[in-house]
Amino acid sequence: MDTLDVLTWRDGHIEALDQTVLPHQVRVLHITTVDQLIEAITTLAVRGAPLLGAVGALGVALAVGQGDREGWDRARLDAEVKRIADARPTAVNLRREVLAAAARIPRGRAAVEAAALAVARFADEVSQRLSRRGAGWLRQACGGGRLGDGKLSVHTHCNTGALACLGWGTALGVIRALHCDGALSHVIVDETRPLLQGARLTCWELGQLGIEHRLACDGAAPFLISQGMADAVVVGADRVAANGDVANKIGTYSLALAAREAGIPFVVAAPESTLDAATPSGAAIPIEQRPDDEVTVPAAPAGTRALNLAFDITPRALVTAIVTEERVITDGPVAR
Amino acid sequence: MDTLDVLTWRDGHIEALDQTVLPHQVRVLHITTVDQLIEAITTLAVRGAPLLGAVGALGVALAVGQGDREGWDRARLDAEVKRIADARPTAVNLRREVLAAAARIPRGRAAVEAAALAVARFADEVSQRLSRRGAGWLRQACGGGRLGDGKLSVHTHCNTGALACLGWGTALGVIRALHCDGALSHVIVDETRPLLQGARLTCWELGQLGIEHRLACDGAAPFLISQGMADAVVVGADRVAANGDVANKIGTYSLALAAREAGIPFVVAAPESTLDAATPSGAAIPIEQRPDDEVTVPAAPAGTRALNLAFDITPRALVTAIVTEERVITDGPVAR
Repeated sequence: MDTLDVLTWRDGHIEALDQTVLPHQVRVLHITTVDQLIEAITTLAVRGAPLLGAVGALGVALAVGQGDREGWDRARLDAEVKRIADARPTAVNLRREVLAAAARIPRGRAAVEAAALAVARFADEVSQRLSRRGAGWLRQACGGGRLGDGKLSVHTHCNTGALACLGWGTALGVIRALHCDGALSHVIVDETRPLLQGARLTCWELGQLGIEHRLACDGAAPFLISQGMADAVVVGADRVAANGDVANKIGTYSLALAAREAGIPFVVAAPESTLDAATPSGAAIPIEQRPDDEVTVPAAPAGTRALNLAFDITPRALVTAIVTEERVITDGPVAR
Repeated sequence: MDTLDVLTWRDGHIEALDQTVLPHQVRVLHITTVDQLIEAITTLAVRGAPLLGAVGALGVALAVGQGDREGWDRARLDAEVKRIADARPTAVNLRREVLAAAARIPRGRAAVEAAALAVARFADEVSQRLSRRGAGWLRQACGGGRLGDGKLSVHTHCNTGALACLGWGTALGVIRALHCDGALSHVIVDETRPLLQGARLTCWELGQLGIEHRLACDGAAPFLISQGMADAVVVGADRVAANGDVANKIGTYSLALAAREAGIPFVVAAPESTLDAATPSGAAIPIEQRPDDEVTVPAAPAGTRALNLAFDITPRALVTAIVTEERVITDGPVAR
């Protein structure tokens, strides 16, 4: 995937791949209003913490343009910008980049656009640095791998590649860097219910990259790990609290428990922008609850209620290493 | 559910609810040949360890009748009986009850039928004794429950009620007994990918019984447990080895890890017939691998390969108690 395919700023509007219909359809959304953008974010047509940062920043530029066309006053513009920042509560990148772009509003529309485009370009560069750092650390930590041939098998969750992050991605970027180094055996991908980002998006990206992989059900993952089928678990993050607790896609906590039990590293790959010094611990991270019908339809009887948390919190004590584009944090707090 | 609705022996053939189309369709399969029976077992139209025992025994009677009609010699009959015993490798009940019924073949068709019907009747009675024993033990072990009101919330997996077991069921029987005692708050049900027995069958049975429940994705379960949302995890078993290792539906191991971490009981409800003294430990239990497309279709790109183990092994050390119709085993080996 080229960055331009996932997210483009063209003639004052946003073009984004609709990630709800991949891999069976490749459809580009043309987003020209704040309402359309919020719809795209809340339905997860556009998703992934770093990508949400970039699309949020571009969303501020979009809002400024829509305000010019429709004659909004500053209060209305601020309200629309706040709606974008609040569209999903767990990922810190969305709110952070929206607020950063909004701070440029007094300098004019061109300044907002330039700042937003810089976010997207920076995300690409950051992902490659992070990926190489993570791959290097893992090769040291895992030695020759469980088979002793220098090739690692990696268990991952959800989708953390170009679709989620631009560039190489976070966890999937680390996997790609291992592959480029000839140090990857294969990847085990959780399907990631309820929205199946692993089955739909990660399998597709790995296929495009020619990386060997197997798909597994989320409930199977801890047992597969217990059976020695992976040298490491590598996941992304939606927010890392100051104490190192990690919010990530629901299902992550179970992998961390299993990795500790199996004695393999549990690694979180996340850019510095995902580390949130203002949030002291996981208990302070808001966890998005999504509609019941994502879980209940079509299998359960009509009227069945669900518990549908979009994210979970993995306590710091279960995290072996947090890899960013700048450092590998193996103990102590993450705030600098 | 009445026992007769799930599995009936009528005029020399088997009538069984087709569990692949529940809850949206109620369809009865009329099984008149060994081929049809094996198809029903391998597609999971008929499933659940105790029910497989009963249907396996009836299958021997069916094979004797088909042999009479088609003029099979004894070698052919034995080969057909062996195919039934081998139709699914993990649940011990299927093979055990097939072999027990087959031992009656020299006494004639009526003797085989009578023995097979006794298996089904006995399963019903056993499930009620097991259910009451398990509920009593849980109420003692959990005290007033996490809210102190004497009502327990229970996390469960897959389907272990009348559909799987005849009568009250195993884990779902324990839940039903708690409900009858006024000691149940609610149930959290894992959807149980890939075949969604929790979403399709357990939610349906709980709805019929008027028991409050919420459906959760399998990957979410360990986090929900970590958040104090259940007083206990209660599951069934497909086979318990002599040392107490438990084979059960894939996803069970992750719940056991989470229960230990959260400090709540992890309880296996299984009839004595599921305890297999001949299998020393979980490592000796064959784990059925099922087709990739159960996991990959329809979400993943065409050609995606999967890891699709139907069961996992939970080591004895993670099991707080094994409840049978006769006893509660909290430590030591299960073989007597």
